[in-house]
Amino acid sequence: MSEAEFACIDCGENYPPNLPRWRCGCGGPLEVEPNAVFTRESLASRPTTLWRYREAIPIQDDSNIVTMDEGMTPLVSIAHSGMEILCKLDFLFPTGSFKDRGATVLMSKMKEWGLAQVLMDSSGNAAAAVAAYAARAGIECDIYAPASTSQAKCAQITAYGARLHKIPGPRAASTAVAMEAAKERFYASHFWNPWFNHGTKTWAFEVWEQLGFTAPNAVVAPTGHGSALLGAYLGFSELLRAGYISELPKIFAAQAARCAPMVQMWEENLEAVPEITPEETIAEGISIAAPVRWKQMIEAVRESGGCFISVEDETIPPLLREFGAKGVLMEPTSAVAFAAAGLLREQGKISQSESVVVPVTGHGLKAADKLEKLMSV
Amino acid sequence: MSEAEFACIDCGENYPPNLPRWRCGCGGPLEVEPNAVFTRESLASRPTTLWRYREAIPIQDDSNIVTMDEGMTPLVSIAHSGMEILCKLDFLFPTGSFKDRGATVLMSKMKEWGLAQVLMDSSGNAAAAVAAYAARAGIECDIYAPASTSQAKCAQITAYGARLHKIPGPRAASTAVAMEAAKERFYASHFWNPWFNHGTKTWAFEVWEQLGFTAPNAVVAPTGHGSALLGAYLGFSELLRAGYISELPKIFAAQAARCAPMVQMWEENLEAVPEITPEETIAEGISIAAPVRWKQMIEAVRESGGCFISVEDETIPPLLREFGAKGVLMEPTSAVAFAAAGLLREQGKISQSESVVVPVTGHGLKAADKLEKLMSV
Repeated sequence: MSEAEFACIDCGENYPPNLPRWRCGCGGPLEVEPNAVFTRESLASRPTTLWRYREAIPIQDDSNIVTMDEGMTPLVSIAHSGMEILCKLDFLFPTGSFKDRGATVLMSKMKEWGLAQVLMDSSGNAAAAVAAYAARAGIECDIYAPASTSQAKCAQITAYGARLHKIPGPRAASTAVAMEAAKERFYASHFWNPWFNHGTKTWAFEVWEQLGFTAPNAVVAPTGHGSALLGAYLGFSELLRAGYISELPKIFAAQAARCAPMVQMWEENLEAVPEITPEETIAEGISIAAPVRWKQMIEAVRESGGCFISVEDETIPPLLREFGAKGVLMEPTSAVAFAAAGLLREQGKISQSESVVVPVTGHGLKAADKLEKLMSV
Repeated sequence: MSEAEFACIDCGENYPPNLPRWRCGCGGPLEVEPNAVFTRESLASRPTTLWRYREAIPIQDDSNIVTMDEGMTPLVSIAHSGMEILCKLDFLFPTGSFKDRGATVLMSKMKEWGLAQVLMDSSGNAAAAVAAYAARAGIECDIYAPASTSQAKCAQITAYGARLHKIPGPRAASTAVAMEAAKERFYASHFWNPWFNHGTKTWAFEVWEQLGFTAPNAVVAPTGHGSALLGAYLGFSELLRAGYISELPKIFAAQAARCAPMVQMWEENLEAVPEITPEETIAEGISIAAPVRWKQMIEAVRESGGCFISVEDETIPPLLREFGAKGVLMEPTSAVAFAAAGLLREQGKISQSESVVVPVTGHGLKAADKLEKLMSV
């Protein structure tokens, strides 16, 4: 493959994509831009994995691909709030969440960079995904996670052979300790390294194929660091540039009201992420007070004609019960986007005639202990 | 579609497949035989779900299909015991186990029969699958499960809106109570109704496609009631009859030594299932003392040139750790087939040059509580 562009979002500084780097010298986040695209005609004969979109995934050499044949998850229609929501069952991945989309690409890049050891921080799903794919790649992996992380998630992370470090304090404390440790080992952060979102973007490609090579009118993504949101934006943007779709879907970003810095930025038109003190939310997977890629997120939502929206924790349990009783068991974090879809419909931001896709980002089995309590009401 | 044959395995009595029935008048189990097959050429343009094998699935009318776009699970190579095992990640289904293959077809048939209410018994995975697809079909569902069933599995079953009845005593007690209740409602049993295995057989079709339209030399299936085993046999037999493969793979059936009635039947050449008192095993999903379809299982294994084999509980935890550290987290029951594959290799029943496929039948997340204990050693 031809080389991708690898540059800073803030200052525009360029870097060679063949050398390990997770942040610009100026402190800004980096982005990578593939300079190729697949042809629509070639897809029919390719394997049913996300690597069918090979040209769009910025990995240089096929021999570095670390994969478990992941991708092409189901798209299932479920009636909710007077509309038909197309649910992308994006928990049907080896580790039980859509983060595997990002991890297969990120760990392929880590392998391409020849790294033998990496570390990262996460509250659960991204850690499990990176740990599993690091295991497949034969790369040693250290994970920093809040001491409050559920035992089941901890068990999963260590099952993949990663070393788990439990860090007292809020989620941000784990990031701080990880960044300190990153002076010694490469920081395989799913939000700092842009390769991750060039994996998550494949959900947009799949939706486009599943809808007969068209884009939906809208997508709603649960949003913390923004890997589902930015994945949608990157994927649909590349389809648009290739002339495969005629416009972007409206991209809506859903946050839990108890930790909604991006909603505040959007509504108050702020130039920087506000300092907030997040309250505890059952949507733990998107409880991110200081997202790194806020600028990209704002631009993506603005360009697409969507908005940021917050939902109250109280709306989540009834939603989990409703979708469960329709055959789809999701983890509480995923429910935030479905609750938001209902609100957007009420507010008229999604009309009845519009097609809307919402990813089910994590399996309900990831939170079996909580579900029991939440669903017994 | 043309009508399938629907007849008793024991006495040969024929029944019309358009009328609800789960057992022959003589008490024997029924089998259904589709009289069509898909063409190899047509597959490339079909959706990537198990319903791509439409002609081979004995449902009359497309409008009755109850689906969540399930199927076409990954096939991943993992080195183990001096061989490369092709792991079919058959836990990548909406409810977290391969039982969804059976449930999508069984509940489609229940819908085709116009049933509004069904019941069944299971220790967990089949119950979750039937409950989820009943929910999709809008069919009321009662589940009878042992009182000892883990809380997480119970939470999953009720999350799908099924009514759960916890029955004291061993697994067989749940079956007995369910069969009594089946005088009032249809018994949607996954082992009595043959439609279930005509769903599980699609794993054979997928493997055949994934191996470039060839059969592997051997498959090893964890075996209780035999839905993975009989699925393999039905699927590969249909491919053989259609001339799509030249011989069956050897089919090996793995049981936990603590509950291995089929191994005893096989080794002692018995004419009936022996009365055994099963000991508690960590392979709870295949702890079945009196399998209904024993005759079919014996014939399948014999015809294919395989055998029945038992493995000790003690071999399971190291295996869970080994595969976890290679990126695949499975529930303990699934590990029985991998342990058996290693034994078969040692015994020379699978040679080094032979390709072997083993399904990972259930997600490790299904047993997060147990994994923690099992993997911490």
